[in-house]
Amino acid sequence: MSAPTVSKVLNGRADVAPATRARVEELLRDHGYRRRRAEATRSPLIDLVFHELESAWAMEVIRGVENVARDAGLSVVLSESAGRLTPGRTWADQVAARRPHGVILVLSGLDESQRALLTSRSIPFVVMDPAGDPGVDVPSIGATNWQGGLAATRHLVDLGHTRIGAISGPTRMMCSRARIDGYRAALETAGLPVDPDLVMTGDFHHEAGYRQGLELLRRPDRPTAVFAGNDLQALGLYEAARELGLRIPQDLSVVGFDDLPVARWVGPPLTTVRQPLMEMAEAAARLVLDLGRDDGSTTATRVELATSLEARSSTGAPAVA
Amino acid sequence: MSAPTVSKVLNGRADVAPATRARVEELLRDHGYRRRRAEATRSPLIDLVFHELESAWAMEVIRGVENVARDAGLSVVLSESAGRLTPGRTWADQVAARRPHGVILVLSGLDESQRALLTSRSIPFVVMDPAGDPGVDVPSIGATNWQGGLAATRHLVDLGHTRIGAISGPTRMMCSRARIDGYRAALETAGLPVDPDLVMTGDFHHEAGYRQGLELLRRPDRPTAVFAGNDLQALGLYEAARELGLRIPQDLSVVGFDDLPVARWVGPPLTTVRQPLMEMAEAAARLVLDLGRDDGSTTATRVELATSLEARSSTGAPAVA
Repeated sequence: MSAPTVSKVLNGRADVAPATRARVEELLRDHGYRRRRAEATRSPLIDLVFHELESAWAMEVIRGVENVARDAGLSVVLSESAGRLTPGRTWADQVAARRPHGVILVLSGLDESQRALLTSRSIPFVVMDPAGDPGVDVPSIGATNWQGGLAATRHLVDLGHTRIGAISGPTRMMCSRARIDGYRAALETAGLPVDPDLVMTGDFHHEAGYRQGLELLRRPDRPTAVFAGNDLQALGLYEAARELGLRIPQDLSVVGFDDLPVARWVGPPLTTVRQPLMEMAEAAARLVLDLGRDDGSTTATRVELATSLEARSSTGAPAVA
Repeated sequence: MSAPTVSKVLNGRADVAPATRARVEELLRDHGYRRRRAEATRSPLIDLVFHELESAWAMEVIRGVENVARDAGLSVVLSESAGRLTPGRTWADQVAARRPHGVILVLSGLDESQRALLTSRSIPFVVMDPAGDPGVDVPSIGATNWQGGLAATRHLVDLGHTRIGAISGPTRMMCSRARIDGYRAALETAGLPVDPDLVMTGDFHHEAGYRQGLELLRRPDRPTAVFAGNDLQALGLYEAARELGLRIPQDLSVVGFDDLPVARWVGPPLTTVRQPLMEMAEAAARLVLDLGRDDGSTTATRVELATSLEARSSTGAPAVA
């Protein structure tokens, strides 16, 4: 390994083979090196990485991060990990080279070598709404997904529903597992059976709500209410109900999750679990800046913000059979 | 003016008073200086500036720019001019310091000194969907707004409507003026009167569509159809109609503009004018990168992409009185 190569790695240059960079980083770590005075060389940027930008709620997150960044005199660099749950190697090299004040990962994690690279550069990172289990030492901001699933389903139970279906998000995302577990807990604590045939799996998009909704609603013993997993799937379910001539809420009650702006605009306005996305993004941005100050004052590095039920017009008592 | 100050300006440092920077830049310009070999010192970034991030269609634009940037190995820096139609001075200094490959301004312009600063740094810029008249020498990507307003209104005329209202966007934005002019042209060419009382002014948000919609629909001689200016205003109009017990399309036909994803999901699905936002953003990103190559090959620097009517279920023939 030549001295120029080591120098390139230290200077965060992009023209170094990933394997070489990893070896140099490892060597430095093993010898207890940690970059000093990172503050002085930082760019006035925060990196924000999305699992996918399609999510309608990405805009709420962008606005939250933008609010905190603007107050701190920083600009936001946006990347998309293009559907993969960890961003690519090139991305990590680019981040190491531009030295932002911090990195916020949305529904996205980092692999071991990416974490090591950022740590060696003293670039702090925070995971928002973790898709997997990020590990206890990874700072994260989430929402109380389990409580939200519980509240959504209890609301339907309280209205008198006994056959309640659900459409989950992708099972690889912890947030969608937690919501469905909350749904099950609500049924079980109410003494209602959990029928696995009434729990469908979607991907948090409109189309999945439509397709899985059609399947649920075409059953002879169709549910009278459905917890749709998120707002986009709820809108897909609306479309399925319209197609089958079922009225909401007279023939079918629907609860979403997220409380996107559109939830108030659809007809009928959607009962949903509010997830404070913008506040979560602001909290993530503040946390990552706090971590960058590195003065030991940051205490809570794993935070879940509360969700709350917003009852609107898409839920009601079941029709008497 | 000291040599270190000049050096700071040349190096794009942020710790120079704006007035001082402006004087230095002016001096250099007056003496015919133009920075050379900008390519070598550019950061792998594209700057994307929004008038406001609230616009639901901002996500389509972000995705388009992100697509082109990713292919070119660049990251996207996002800023918001916080409702002002030109971004602040600090922003221009930050951009000059970070030297992106180009700047894309969405519904936003630059003042003279900002343009001069970017030009002196050889940082090309493109305006997308110009809000004002950007001047003939400013490269821009737009959509055929006038044609879209014409097509929306002709569709309603063809269905048999004769009292057709409209809700415009902010009058300071050229795109909203063009749409309303298209609306007027459709009425005039059909031999129908243009009633100024039926043309309301909104701000492209849901709330304005709701408020102005209520006012239009409460008139004793209410219109049987409304061109809502954009999709968000159309959704506000839906809410106003629901509140007044008017059915769409039986009692009221509604046409939007933009074709956001949500237009297909609402009930009834919205007839709207499709604006190819993602393609426009991609075109803007490609144009700004072309301009940066500066090899004289860039010819079309003012482009309008075609709009098209998407007829769905929110429009129909007027009820027989």
